[in-house]
Amino acid sequence: MRAPVTTASLPWVLLIFLITFHVEALKPHLLGRRSVSRSSSQQRSVFYKTFYFDQQIDHFGFLENGTFKQRYLVNDQHWHKNNGPILFYTGNEGDITWFCNNTVITTFNYFVNGFMWDIAEELGAMLVFAEHRYYGESMPFGNESYSNAKYLNYLTSEQALADFAVLIKSLKKTLPGAQNSPVIAIGGSYGGMLAAWLRMKYPNVVIGALAASAPIWQFPGMVPCGDFYKIVTQDFANSGVNCSKNIRRSWTAISNVSSTAEGLQWLSQEFGLCSLLKEEDINDFKAWLQETWVNLAMVDYPYEANFLQHLPRWPIKVVCTHLQFDTDVSDKQLLHGISQAVRVYYNYTGSAVCLNVSETATGNLGIRGWFYQSCTEMVMPMCTDGVQDMFEAMAWNFQAFSDECYALFGVRPREDWADTVYGGKNISSHSNIIFSNGGLDPWISGGVTKSLSDSLVAILIPDGAHHLDLRFNNEYDPQSVLLTRELEVKYFKQWVKQNTRAQ
Amino acid sequence: MRAPVTTASLPWVLLIFLITFHVEALKPHLLGRRSVSRSSSQQRSVFYKTFYFDQQIDHFGFLENGTFKQRYLVNDQHWHKNNGPILFYTGNEGDITWFCNNTVITTFNYFVNGFMWDIAEELGAMLVFAEHRYYGESMPFGNESYSNAKYLNYLTSEQALADFAVLIKSLKKTLPGAQNSPVIAIGGSYGGMLAAWLRMKYPNVVIGALAASAPIWQFPGMVPCGDFYKIVTQDFANSGVNCSKNIRRSWTAISNVSSTAEGLQWLSQEFGLCSLLKEEDINDFKAWLQETWVNLAMVDYPYEANFLQHLPRWPIKVVCTHLQFDTDVSDKQLLHGISQAVRVYYNYTGSAVCLNVSETATGNLGIRGWFYQSCTEMVMPMCTDGVQDMFEAMAWNFQAFSDECYALFGVRPREDWADTVYGGKNISSHSNIIFSNGGLDPWISGGVTKSLSDSLVAILIPDGAHHLDLRFNNEYDPQSVLLTRELEVKYFKQWVKQNTRAQ
Repeated sequence: MRAPVTTASLPWVLLIFLITFHVEALKPHLLGRRSVSRSSSQQRSVFYKTFYFDQQIDHFGFLENGTFKQRYLVNDQHWHKNNGPILFYTGNEGDITWFCNNTVITTFNYFVNGFMWDIAEELGAMLVFAEHRYYGESMPFGNESYSNAKYLNYLTSEQALADFAVLIKSLKKTLPGAQNSPVIAIGGSYGGMLAAWLRMKYPNVVIGALAASAPIWQFPGMVPCGDFYKIVTQDFANSGVNCSKNIRRSWTAISNVSSTAEGLQWLSQEFGLCSLLKEEDINDFKAWLQETWVNLAMVDYPYEANFLQHLPRWPIKVVCTHLQFDTDVSDKQLLHGISQAVRVYYNYTGSAVCLNVSETATGNLGIRGWFYQSCTEMVMPMCTDGVQDMFEAMAWNFQAFSDECYALFGVRPREDWADTVYGGKNISSHSNIIFSNGGLDPWISGGVTKSLSDSLVAILIPDGAHHLDLRFNNEYDPQSVLLTRELEVKYFKQWVKQNTRAQ
Repeated sequence: MRAPVTTASLPWVLLIFLITFHVEALKPHLLGRRSVSRSSSQQRSVFYKTFYFDQQIDHFGFLENGTFKQRYLVNDQHWHKNNGPILFYTGNEGDITWFCNNTVITTFNYFVNGFMWDIAEELGAMLVFAEHRYYGESMPFGNESYSNAKYLNYLTSEQALADFAVLIKSLKKTLPGAQNSPVIAIGGSYGGMLAAWLRMKYPNVVIGALAASAPIWQFPGMVPCGDFYKIVTQDFANSGVNCSKNIRRSWTAISNVSSTAEGLQWLSQEFGLCSLLKEEDINDFKAWLQETWVNLAMVDYPYEANFLQHLPRWPIKVVCTHLQFDTDVSDKQLLHGISQAVRVYYNYTGSAVCLNVSETATGNLGIRGWFYQSCTEMVMPMCTDGVQDMFEAMAWNFQAFSDECYALFGVRPREDWADTVYGGKNISSHSNIIFSNGGLDPWISGGVTKSLSDSLVAILIPDGAHHLDLRFNNEYDPQSVLLTRELEVKYFKQWVKQNTRAQ
């Protein structure tokens, strides 16, 4: 059993939740390389207009009365004025577009929210995608937004929710024909948490919410800290003989092999790394591998897709083809398999010249933003034991985490705040929220997986990874996600009907 | 028709909501003179222990990580451990006690919340009275709290609600036997708004709320700005022949009489003022009178009582006995009647040496705090037209108000924020809130007077003034308030039962 969290190993604890967005949203420029999947349904183009809203920097104090430009995107081609709903995407910690060419109208493939585009016509809905403050272009203090603790002080989920609420109220007031349009919040992952919370805190503003793969219970004391990595492990265990077992063995093998200079060199070459590993890099190297397995678990989709990396259908199955050997092979044989497996993720197309271990560790604004949020409100305990999961044992240590945060940002996380402000397990008095979760997605660990009432509905997508339901329809979609999307639309229509009746 | 709001006349616009607390809470030291009313039921003594809780100064940002001591009072003599409810008074803008002698246990007559003491035994309830930040002893920056805009920045209702939520969570966690105790929020006036909002924003923390005389709709665009003063006027019109008519005439009479030096002297003597009126004091003098009439409308109780002033039963009826003459008497005759009427309020006991026009204008921390809140979130439009009410016509002018606020505090009010954050008229998705209102109370103008659902219940007390239902039982209580209290307790029991079943 390893000692609890150390400074060196903490970064991946911080990183965890980010990974989703690291992969899917934080490096949107890489999506220029995107090749569409086999399904022609994913080749459709979508159009939006970009707008900027003058948003209060501080909703909860009046001394700072400055405003910033919050970016939001609108498509109203299918909207039925006067009563057609508005589907409002509650932006998460990333750029709301993958590219903005500074023209008013542009084209893009919205890679996360295909669902919204797919259903717009059926619902006669306007689509609005609102960017989360401190991400993309929506910077409260411009380029200085991340320059100091004072400027970062307004990066909280409460401020972001207030942004959304104020923006929606303004749209309904100013857009001709929008006054009676009911608004439904839709989001995935952290954005899904925001969608649920928007409905909980501002039910006057949104009539309902779809919270896709939203781990609103991944907070202290609500779920076991080890569940997340257990699910990652199960995904690998179920995708090939000995797959998770060999990954579990790999950590010791890495420690063994890297104990000599020759071994470090071998390891670097075997993995085709861009720079030679040093002894002190081994923790980072392990964290990079661990993150890779987690990424794969989140994007284990049934069709070929391209996020940060171009991946095959059911990528974990492909990964596991390289790890099916007996569990008594030598360390180097084992690590050869691991290196082959990792290449499925990093070099499926064969175009990578070398693999960069520090890639996920280099910060960009988005990553730094999520680090800050993790270090303040979004305290999500994670732990491993090496027995029920395939990782090195690591306990959750709040104090060490807090100290790390203080060193990084000069702030300390508040362990109980999310529970108090967002209700924790005690949310049954709310209404009109769909919690959808994928059975393959590690984030289901903190999700709402059982319905809490007739109008707080949990939907399980057994063979779905991270918010699969929010993606464009695809010919390889499993039946479960098709049914899920149907059900979600059914609820949307029901909420709209209820709302019309109440008016 | 007078010009819209001017700088000179603005203070009473700011003052309006405060008056409640000015009378009942902000000058608690004066209550030392209190003589208990005729009913022996009001002579009961109550005991509480005083505690201090380390509360975050800023719940919505992490840069300011300091804490302050929030005061709260507890009585658990009737509490049934393990399941007895906690009645939690959401403190409003005043000292939570009228006297604190720095001992742990003291005796007092809790003048606002007699109701809670009266029902504690029946419900087996613990009573908790939490002080609102920036009032009483609960000062985030000690004596400096009001010294500058930076320190005042954390005086908002959202911060106060978060204080209450965090305190309740902590009490339930740390008090032996409190873990399963359901909590009911109770408050009156602004405190009633807080009680309702606490249930709306933190339904995980309180199972229900009694919002007594809580004008949650007294915000821009929700109710006509003139309703408040219309109700004040009706109270006087219904309490004596020509009563409101003569008050309406008095403003012109004051202008006429005060136009000469002799007239100013006569006026000062006639009203027994402590200092001679000058020409430039006339607006303040009128504002003082106007405030007096409003005060009387709020405390028009069916029994003799002593708040800021000792008053007779149904004080407006007594006031009106001095104003029943014909409406064609001379200015001086009319003003003689007004001076007699005013003395009912300021000198019922005959012990006042002189009347101090500037009394209500002198700031103390509490008044300054409410001014600040009015100048930020609590934007409550008020207007008069001199036709449907008995006051000089004055339009509501948000811009002038905003400018005044900026001059006073360096902050500007946000006109639409309360609507966005607290739901405005669109609150029907919430549950378990009782809105009680008195038919005589001018604040009913902004109250919820019709039930919005089975669990958002409005109760009208036709012959009740400002939160009469929260007061101790009294033998002169009208039947309507007795029934109201019964119904309130019935709902409390129902919520507790629901909660027990849900656990």
